[in-house]
This record gives sequence, structure tokens and C-alpha cells, in this order.
Amino acid sequence: MFESAEIGHAVDDDTYKAAVPALRQALLQAQYELKEQGGFPVIVLINGIEGAGKGETVKLLSEWMDPRLIEVRTFDQQTDEELAHPPAWRYWRQLPAKGRIGVFFGNWYSQMIQGRVHGRFKDAVLDQAIGEAERLEQMLCDEGALIFKFWFHLSKHQMKHRLKTLKDDPLHSWRISPLDWQQSKTYDRFVRYGERVLRRTSREYAPWHVIEGQDSNYRSLAFGNILLEGLQARLKAPARGVQQATPPLGSSLDERTVLDALDLTHALSKADYHQQLIQEQARLATLLRDKRMRRHALVAVFEGNDAAGKGGAIRRVAAALDPRQYHIVSIAAPTQEELAQPYLWRFWRHIPAKGQFTVFDRSWYGRVLVERVEGFCEPVDWLRAYSEINDFEQQLTEAGIVVVKFWLAIDKQTQLERFNEREETPFKRYKITEDDWRNREKWDDYRAAVGDMVDRTSTEIAPWTLVEANDKRWARVKVLRTLNDALEKAFSKHD
Amino acid sequence: MFESAEIGHAVDDDTYKAAVPALRQALLQAQYELKEQGGFPVIVLINGIEGAGKGETVKLLSEWMDPRLIEVRTFDQQTDEELAHPPAWRYWRQLPAKGRIGVFFGNWYSQMIQGRVHGRFKDAVLDQAIGEAERLEQMLCDEGALIFKFWFHLSKHQMKHRLKTLKDDPLHSWRISPLDWQQSKTYDRFVRYGERVLRRTSREYAPWHVIEGQDSNYRSLAFGNILLEGLQARLKAPARGVQQATPPLGSSLDERTVLDALDLTHALSKADYHQQLIQEQARLATLLRDKRMRRHALVAVFEGNDAAGKGGAIRRVAAALDPRQYHIVSIAAPTQEELAQPYLWRFWRHIPAKGQFTVFDRSWYGRVLVERVEGFCEPVDWLRAYSEINDFEQQLTEAGIVVVKFWLAIDKQTQLERFNEREETPFKRYKITEDDWRNREKWDDYRAAVGDMVDRTSTEIAPWTLVEANDKRWARVKVLRTLNDALEKAFSKHD
Repeated sequence: MFESAEIGHAVDDDTYKAAVPALRQALLQAQYELKEQGGFPVIVLINGIEGAGKGETVKLLSEWMDPRLIEVRTFDQQTDEELAHPPAWRYWRQLPAKGRIGVFFGNWYSQMIQGRVHGRFKDAVLDQAIGEAERLEQMLCDEGALIFKFWFHLSKHQMKHRLKTLKDDPLHSWRISPLDWQQSKTYDRFVRYGERVLRRTSREYAPWHVIEGQDSNYRSLAFGNILLEGLQARLKAPARGVQQATPPLGSSLDERTVLDALDLTHALSKADYHQQLIQEQARLATLLRDKRMRRHALVAVFEGNDAAGKGGAIRRVAAALDPRQYHIVSIAAPTQEELAQPYLWRFWRHIPAKGQFTVFDRSWYGRVLVERVEGFCEPVDWLRAYSEINDFEQQLTEAGIVVVKFWLAIDKQTQLERFNEREETPFKRYKITEDDWRNREKWDDYRAAVGDMVDRTSTEIAPWTLVEANDKRWARVKVLRTLNDALEKAFSKHD
Repeated sequence: MFESAEIGHAVDDDTYKAAVPALRQALLQAQYELKEQGGFPVIVLINGIEGAGKGETVKLLSEWMDPRLIEVRTFDQQTDEELAHPPAWRYWRQLPAKGRIGVFFGNWYSQMIQGRVHGRFKDAVLDQAIGEAERLEQMLCDEGALIFKFWFHLSKHQMKHRLKTLKDDPLHSWRISPLDWQQSKTYDRFVRYGERVLRRTSREYAPWHVIEGQDSNYRSLAFGNILLEGLQARLKAPARGVQQATPPLGSSLDERTVLDALDLTHALSKADYHQQLIQEQARLATLLRDKRMRRHALVAVFEGNDAAGKGGAIRRVAAALDPRQYHIVSIAAPTQEELAQPYLWRFWRHIPAKGQFTVFDRSWYGRVLVERVEGFCEPVDWLRAYSEINDFEQQLTEAGIVVVKFWLAIDKQTQLERFNEREETPFKRYKITEDDWRNREKWDDYRAAVGDMVDRTSTEIAPWTLVEANDKRWARVKVLRTLNDALEKAFSKHD
């Protein structure tokens, strides 16, 4: 894999000087087209052997192109806020917006290769990390990102020589930290695991580019050309890649969904309700104060039919708690900043830190519900959303976050009664809009979407709870009890 | 100041129960109007004696109103990201957007009172903190925020009794941390310094409300009523308070400004330029790697005439450095999220952490330049901006941030030549737009605005550097040299 990057590629100074002006101008031109189009973000991952010119090349990039449109990010030591979130959170918060270029040093590949080289974990964990990187990049590309992955290479002999030269040069000696030197000893391991990673993660949508780092002229031109060609090709491509024909999900033979299995007659008497509500609220308050909560976080997702009582259920959950213990995030139309990012970005930014509890009033399931039914996105987008969401929730649960998802279900007649009541009560009128009536006409489409959503995203780690919500009391108690059971189950693993 | 909050206010249960439903409905109504209008943010500061029902009252608020539109924030221990920024940064990042309510526990008042009570500083520092709080609140109100400041009070006797009751109640005993108990001993100091703070910071635009906390019925109704009246009054007020007549800045007798004192014939030969540029670039690279940099950060602000060469100067600064060492922030039209916040919010979010360097390509001075000249804001807004900006920069410099501000000045003829050159060079055409020509017609207005800006915001802690930029070489070297001198001066204070 690295063979052709150890053969002493070089470009003489005259050739280099002749080539650079046109390359620069073309890169700058591409950068401005990118900015004007604002159509996609560019992510440049920088990896490779120490001393192979990674830093110099990125510096050159900032000189050649407009540095105001480039963000260079280094992921060293995690801050305590980063440590309190799932590992991917730090990358999500630094993603470049559409029209901009983000250069990532110390990215997910650096983390996984160094972890393996220094023996912090075995191949199985490395392969897990590889799988996660693949899914992340696939998702980013599906969302429109253009990803370049560069590996700057040196042979062992070249590296030793290069590090010695740098060390002897007073202008550069500060660059070499003790850790870097140590790497000279671990070169073999670094290359071996690097090879494994490159082999597994070089995919058609985001291939690796290996560049020999010995000769700076060669290195710079090779890097610039790859970047330019990739940018130009993408800028010329149609706004959206050719839509792949997506296989249909398959229609149900009898149109029965999980919703049909619900017994919507469930109800609680007023007395039972008050007793059970208070009991479950006290239980939730106690669980959230439990010291085992410090190793977890809680995410509650509320989806449901219009007028199913999401707001009321959320208020009963909140009423159990000190308001300092939770945040409620209402998902509405995305802002400009959110639209300039991949779909899941707007949810990642609200993921709670350890010890915290966040309620999502509507959620990332909007893509497979309202966006699917209303045609706000292409079928290929909501079809891939199922697995992206499952990946996302897996990352949350692996970081100790307990994910509880509610679908509050009512029947069509109950919805009609509640809509009418809202229109008749001055105080509730703000709750009902034209949209609600329009959505109601698509009752069956939503029903099918909910069925698919539950089938495809109700997982052992983050199951859906269907809540019979014709009776509000029943629904509120069931919501609280489910949250409590989920927390207790998570805590019990510590015993 | 607290006398009338120690007289045993109470409301009987029947009266309370009769009053609550209407209050709740009115609060909810006001909250939805606030959301619909989206016109201003509401900030509720919660302070007072331990055990006076602060937490219970906020909890009640979340029950009475829609908790999805309320954000409750607690400012305890600072995270390491917060510690690496100026003290006010943590408040700025948590400000509620327009249309929402932010409830702040552990806010700036808690910090200053507790610091003084526990003897971490003396009255002089307390008074400084008071002054900062006043300026912050004045600015927030000028930007449209509605601020409520609540002090929940108990007499010493009431407090002791209340803490004992809470301690004996198994359901509540967890609430009392050792520190809180300790406060019972420091009650006198807490009240003394609290009084000092309230006296000094109760202003017409954000008065304090002292509420006796003994009786929960009284406390809840008093709190709810104050909130309701304040919200309703503000919702009924005209979109913008009556514009105060603002005194004019005074016109200059001879129309001479600081810009007239510049000698725009300064120039560097190519040879001198190359030698000096490399020298200053190396100096900057060395200074930023100096270990004293860890206690500082660097902010460079670039403003100037169109075509004065800001971009080129910034590139020469960037070229000196490893791209991991700096961020460049280009200020363009604000996003929706930025528009929903006070003006300075969009800059606070980019302020560098300790050890970092941020370049602002255009900046917070937009308000007193383009917004003033183009009439994008009212005179009262840009007139108050001078002191707000001075406060802002003082907060930065007090946190160790070195603030360097450049105005790149060219004459009108030079601008014309550069505009023409841009139009004639295909490669530079993206740099010139209709706006540039329009701005040029307002040359004299901009000139006056720059004169006022320099007069009013060139301070010892953050002086303006006027850069003679007819000669680009001269300008670039001067920019680099000024940055270096500023850093060296800051570092020299450690010797």
C-alpha cells in the first residue's frame, strides 16, 4: 500500500516554480466557486508518518488558498466538556459549514492508529473504530460533504533522516516533541496498523491518497493537484449525484402495523392516576439524583400524532424535577446554521453531558416522518436515515446515555375531538393550526411511516415505547414509568 | 432594604387556590405572545437567602408556564473551556434567544456576593464586579432584553428554622449541601453584601424585586405577579421604546480627522520588504510559541477601506504561522441565530481561549461603521456601541487577551485604481461588487465614522493602529510589527 510512496519521488525547483502559479490560481478559483455555490462542505483529513510534512503542507494550503474560508482543527487532549459527551461529539461541533474547508489534524484515524500502536486496545477495538469511521464518512458524503483523506508517507530510513535534520535545525527543533521521537521506534507498528486502516477505509466515496513526503516540491504539488481535481470534479457535478434507484421497503400484505396491536382503551381512574403519577415522579427524581447517574445521561424522545398529548406528558416529566436537572429541546424548522450542516448536526449540539437529562420534543425522527410524508427530502435520504439514526443512537448508548423513545398514539376520532376542543377554547387556540388539519388528511401515510420507523429503529439499545394515549392519564404514567424502568435497568449494570 | 421582607407575609390556601388558575393562564398567554412576537429575550436572575424557596419557585414556574420555552441554567464550577475564556463568556454562551425565557441560577450576583462573603476579595473588587454587572445589564436591556432580578429573602430566624425543617424532612434533606449550612453562620455577611449589591444595581431598566420566602403561597403569587406584569407591560409597549433624543457627537470645526494626519506616502522597497517581512514573520512565530503565551490570547481586528488590502495583510500574518495556531473569522451578514441575540454575541462566540490567536476580518466595529453610515441601525444604537465596545474589550484584556486593531487606510485615488484593476483582471473580479462602488460614493461619511470610531475606542488597553496602506508592502510589515510589539509588551509584564 505504501510501496510507491517510498521510491523517492521528487520535482525539481524549476518545474515546481513553473507549475505553482496556475495551480494556486485554479485552487483559489475553485474555492470561490465553492463559497458562492455554498453547496457542500469540504473535509480534509491529514494523517501519516511524523516528519512527512503534514504541517508544512497544510500551512502551504493556507497560503495558496484564502485562509478565511479554511478552518484548521487539531484534536489533541479532550476538554472536560468533550470527555462528558460521546467521542464523536468533538468532531460534530467542529464540522465546516457548506462552502467552507475544514482541515482535521488528529482526527478519528489518528486516534485509532495511535491507540492501537501504543497498545491501548487490540485489533477488535481497532476494527470497531474502523467501522465507525466508515459509517461516519458514508453519512457525511451522503449529506453532500466532499472528503479528502491524505496519508503523508516516509520510509523508515527517510523518517529517521528527516527527524534528525529537523532536530539539528534550530528553527525547527521546537516542532519535535518527545512523543514524536518515540514514534521513530514504533514506525513498524505505525505503518502496519496504518496499512490496515487505509485498506479498510478507502472507499469510492472517500478514497485515501498516499503522498510521499520526502521532497517538498513533489509533496506540495501532489497534494494541491489532488485537491484541485477533486474540487473541480465536484463543482462541475450536477447539484445532486444521480439518484440511485432505491429498493422499496416492501408494502405490507394486510396493512397492519404495530399500531394496530395497541389497545387504545387503556385508561386510569383519577384516583389511580394521582397516586401512580406522584409515585413515578418521586421515583424519577430519586433516580436522577442517584450517584450512578454521573456515569450516564438521559435522552427522552417524544413523537406522536398531533394532539396526542406530547406537551402534557413532557410537563408531567418536568414537574417531577428540579428545573436545573433537565433541558427541553423543541425541534422546529432548522436555522440557516443548521441547514449548512449534515442533518444530525442539529441534534448532536443538544446531546446532554454526563449526569444531564434532555427531552426532545420531536426529534431526528422528523426525517422518516414529516419529511418522508410531505416529500421534504428524497426517498434515498429518508431511506438511509434509518441506519444513520441507529448508528447515532448506538454512539449515544455506548457513551452511557440512556435513550428512551415514545410514540404517543391516539385514534382518528380522538384527534378530531381534541382538535375541535382546541378550536373552541380561546386559551388553547394557539395550539391548532391549518397544518394540523392538513396533516390529518395524511393520516394513513403517517401511519405507514410510523410502522416503518418502529420496525427499523426499535432496537435493543434504544427501543420505541408505543404509548396508548387516548387516555391522557394512562399515557403520562406510562411515560414516567418507562423512563424510570430504563434508568433502573442502566443503573443495575453497575451492581 | 430587606425590612418589608421579614414581616411574615402570608397568603392563605383558599386565596392562593382561587388566584392561581387565572395567573397561570395569563402567564401562559404572555409566554405564547412572547414566542409569537419573538421580539425580545427574557432573563430571570434568581438570588437570595438559602432556603428561601428559590429552587421551588423556579420549579413552579416551569409547571405554570410551558417549560419548552424556558431554559434554566446553573453556573457552578467552571469547565476548563470556561476557565480559558474571559469570565463573562459563560454567560454569553447561555443567553436565551429572542422569544425565550432564561432563568439563571448562580449568576454574576451569586459569584460576586459569595466571593466577598467568603473573603476571596475586598470591597473594591466587589464594586468593580457591581460596575461590570450594571454595564452588562444596561447593554442587554438596550439590546431589547427584559431582565427580572429576584431576591428571595428570609430573616435570620426564619432561615435557621427553615433549614432545620428541610434537614429533618427525609424528602428534602438531600438538598442541603454542607456549604449551604455553613451559610447559616455567614448570614449577616451575606445580607450585608447582598444589600450593597442590590442598592447599587437596582436600576430603572432592571430593578430588583425582593420577595419574602417564608410562606410558599405568598412567595409564589408575588413572583408570578411580578413576572406577569413585567411581561404584559413589555408586550404591550411599542416595538421599540421611545427613541431618546441623542446628543450629536459634535461636528468637527475643520473636518480634519486622525486620517488626515497619516502620511500615505510611506513605502518600502521590494528588498526592504522581503527582509523585514521575513524578520517580523519569524518574530511572530516565535512569540506565539513562547510559553508566556499560555496566559494570553491574541485578537487582531482588521478594518479598512474597501480594497485597502485587508485580505493580503491577513494572509501575510497567517503565512508566518502553523495553521493550527490561528483562526480567521470573517464577519458577514448575521445568521438567524445571531440576529436572535444581542449584537456582541456573534463575536463573543469566536473569542479565543488562552494560548489561541483569532483574526477578525471585519468585526464588532461594523456597528459604528457600515451600520451607522448605511442607516442599518438607529443613531441611539451606534452611539451606545462605543462604550459597549470599550467594555467588551476591557473584559478581553483583563482576561489576558491582547487586542490589536488595525484600520488600513488608502486614499480615494488609490481605491479607484485598485477597483479598476480588479475589474480588469478576470482572476480578481470576484473581489469587486456593486456594493463596493456604492460604498465609494459615501467616502466622506465613512471618513467621519472612522474619525469618531478612533476617537472613541482607541484606548490604552486596546489602541487603534492606523496603517498607511497605499503601499501594500509598508502596510503588511507595519501590521506584523505592531502585532509583535503588542505581544512583547504583554509578555514583558511577566518579567
